[in-house]
Amino acid sequence: MIQCPRGTRDFLPDEMERRRHYESILRKVAKTFGFREIATPIFEETELFITRSGPNILNEIYAFKDKGDRDIALRPELTAPVMRMFVNSMSNEPRPLKLFYFGQCFRYERPQSGRYREFFQFGAELIGNANAETDAEAIALAAAMIKGLGLKEYKIRIGHIGVLRQMLTDAGVPSEKLPEVLQKLDKKLYDEARDLMDSMNIDGAAIENIFKVTETVGGKEVLNMVPDDVSAYLNELVEILEAMNVNDIEIDLGVVRGLDYYTGMVFEAEAPSLGAEKQICGGGSYSLSELFGGEKVFSTGFAIGFDRILLAMEKEGRTFENEGVAAYVIPVSDDVRLDAAKIVAMLRRNGIPADIDIMKRKMAKAMKQASSVRSEFTVIVGKNELAEDSVTVRNMETGDQKLVKLDRLAAYIDRFTFSE
Amino acid sequence: MIQCPRGTRDFLPDEMERRRHYESILRKVAKTFGFREIATPIFEETELFITRSGPNILNEIYAFKDKGDRDIALRPELTAPVMRMFVNSMSNEPRPLKLFYFGQCFRYERPQSGRYREFFQFGAELIGNANAETDAEAIALAAAMIKGLGLKEYKIRIGHIGVLRQMLTDAGVPSEKLPEVLQKLDKKLYDEARDLMDSMNIDGAAIENIFKVTETVGGKEVLNMVPDDVSAYLNELVEILEAMNVNDIEIDLGVVRGLDYYTGMVFEAEAPSLGAEKQICGGGSYSLSELFGGEKVFSTGFAIGFDRILLAMEKEGRTFENEGVAAYVIPVSDDVRLDAAKIVAMLRRNGIPADIDIMKRKMAKAMKQASSVRSEFTVIVGKNELAEDSVTVRNMETGDQKLVKLDRLAAYIDRFTFSE
Repeated sequence: MIQCPRGTRDFLPDEMERRRHYESILRKVAKTFGFREIATPIFEETELFITRSGPNILNEIYAFKDKGDRDIALRPELTAPVMRMFVNSMSNEPRPLKLFYFGQCFRYERPQSGRYREFFQFGAELIGNANAETDAEAIALAAAMIKGLGLKEYKIRIGHIGVLRQMLTDAGVPSEKLPEVLQKLDKKLYDEARDLMDSMNIDGAAIENIFKVTETVGGKEVLNMVPDDVSAYLNELVEILEAMNVNDIEIDLGVVRGLDYYTGMVFEAEAPSLGAEKQICGGGSYSLSELFGGEKVFSTGFAIGFDRILLAMEKEGRTFENEGVAAYVIPVSDDVRLDAAKIVAMLRRNGIPADIDIMKRKMAKAMKQASSVRSEFTVIVGKNELAEDSVTVRNMETGDQKLVKLDRLAAYIDRFTFSE
Repeated sequence: MIQCPRGTRDFLPDEMERRRHYESILRKVAKTFGFREIATPIFEETELFITRSGPNILNEIYAFKDKGDRDIALRPELTAPVMRMFVNSMSNEPRPLKLFYFGQCFRYERPQSGRYREFFQFGAELIGNANAETDAEAIALAAAMIKGLGLKEYKIRIGHIGVLRQMLTDAGVPSEKLPEVLQKLDKKLYDEARDLMDSMNIDGAAIENIFKVTETVGGKEVLNMVPDDVSAYLNELVEILEAMNVNDIEIDLGVVRGLDYYTGMVFEAEAPSLGAEKQICGGGSYSLSELFGGEKVFSTGFAIGFDRILLAMEKEGRTFENEGVAAYVIPVSDDVRLDAAKIVAMLRRNGIPADIDIMKRKMAKAMKQASSVRSEFTVIVGKNELAEDSVTVRNMETGDQKLVKLDRLAAYIDRFTFSE
């Protein structure tokens, strides 16, 4: 029996309804912030991702040749495609551009809890400026999205990649070695970081000072540990966020985003309930378009791991109630089946979600099917009632039955179903 | 400059908003019919598609090996994945299962108008029965979707694959040659079909009779040309559709679906405005699950080509009005920027789509940006007005300006924006 490929998932109706519900909340919040949705292809030229992340990315992505011998790859993330699209088609648009996206990404890695080979990302990019207000707008959106979903336990940690870069450079780490050291610090692998810097003859006290900074978390008071320009910048950012009533933030100078193109502010959000794979959101300000042949444009963006944030909500005990149809139409006998078809079509034309028995079930089994599709009412179509232009309507929750005239049926069901 | 791969597209904000709008209409119609959404992975084991369509499918799909040496392929259609999912996870669910999906599919073919390598399909599968009511439910849904989108010129043509199969068999076409002949008839390639059947020594009069049937289009009266059982079946189907007020149909005995697994009723919809590539919907009743290791279950399904139907709507001159934000907040001077941030956040918390100038533009340029994001109002934040807890609200359409108290601002904008 063929299964879905390892690391991918089928979404059955109940789960899919839940996902679409939360997806639509994220979309609504993004629109409320003036962001607009875009979409790019599922695959891109492989070169795009190598340009962004370096050749090592090839080890973790689905890259292959198409029939025209082109190197293409399933997208592992969406920032590079969005910036390519910006360079190709939107570079003359008035700025800032406030864009968001939702879609599948793909990584070839060992599947585990919250990590899939096909996973879903919701993200936003604010293109056109490098200032505290741009960064605040992006962080405020991320915070509103997480809050909008109803996640309870999370924290948004804001840092600045310039601080560590400068400290490492001042201590004598050569620029070509910076990414490697930063990666160790990102993962808090202090022993490995120490060995690495020892091998570069970095002063031990400087190393410990760097480690201390990466462990620094708190309110605005921790900003006395960073250079004046960064301190002033982050102070302004936090002030704007406070004005916007975004309070679920803290300064964390240990936030390191792995990639070279981050230029200043970086931020992450995590849900502690998720354990080891707890990051649910990551982003920062960056400059990437010039790599793809465009002019240099500063942007701030972030991505939310949709699968992971849903998992975090589950772990918090969040439940979701699936909807059913409003009416399930049951013909009592074969000679009223056409009448039943007329009635279900009439309900649907009135915008009322309605289903009909098409399996010629006996009444008891048809009632069971009505429950299984979570119908609020059954509409029982019988010959005698039809002679009086009526049907029997049963409230599936209370069991109450009532004879209702056909020309009042839609209004009758509508009133009960949508008035709550 | 890297472009998006040949045959794929970027969707910019205006276009994406249009697509999401029509996508949501299709989704709503499907739910009104009691169908529920599911999703399957972007790629599957290649074997799945070979099992459904034969090895020739390899010539037109994106098939490749993953890093674990598995043969996988980007899905060229969604019926096979849905039936795989049904066999894997839903075969014990109460029937009928009424499922729908929306997503990307991929074919490696020459791009042309309405044909892309990455294209979008909306489809539905009704699993569990082979009867006229099942078929009617599927056709009624397809008709309601097309109608719901507002397409004006289209026709749904209903046929029965059993008629031509039987005629060809009776005339002496061996069963292994049926698919090839049917394919020619599907494309109305009569000369090639004649040569092919001549080579099998089929009687010339029988051939012409078969051609005549494939050209037979009309109402129920044309059913006298088909065997009694098919005639009775299609009669019943049309009666149910008429009861459901589905009138945009005709009988067309020339509707041939290319694939072997179609068992009876087949149907197509086309939009004449599209010229050569005019088919916008195709489906029929089939039996496929047993190929994937499940029990034999009859189903009826169809897919709508989302890109093509949008193209047809465009050709009919259909326009779409993009939405903008409700309010664009402009701080008059630097010392009120934090107040402006507070105000935009307050509007957003009230569910009002609102944007804010983050580029420190002068008033005239900020107004221009407000127009470019299609804002209905600008909220001008000035020091003097703030001293009286007020801001100036400008209606961007009429140019009217009004001083509004901050605690009435959300209600003021809300009333104008959403009361229409």
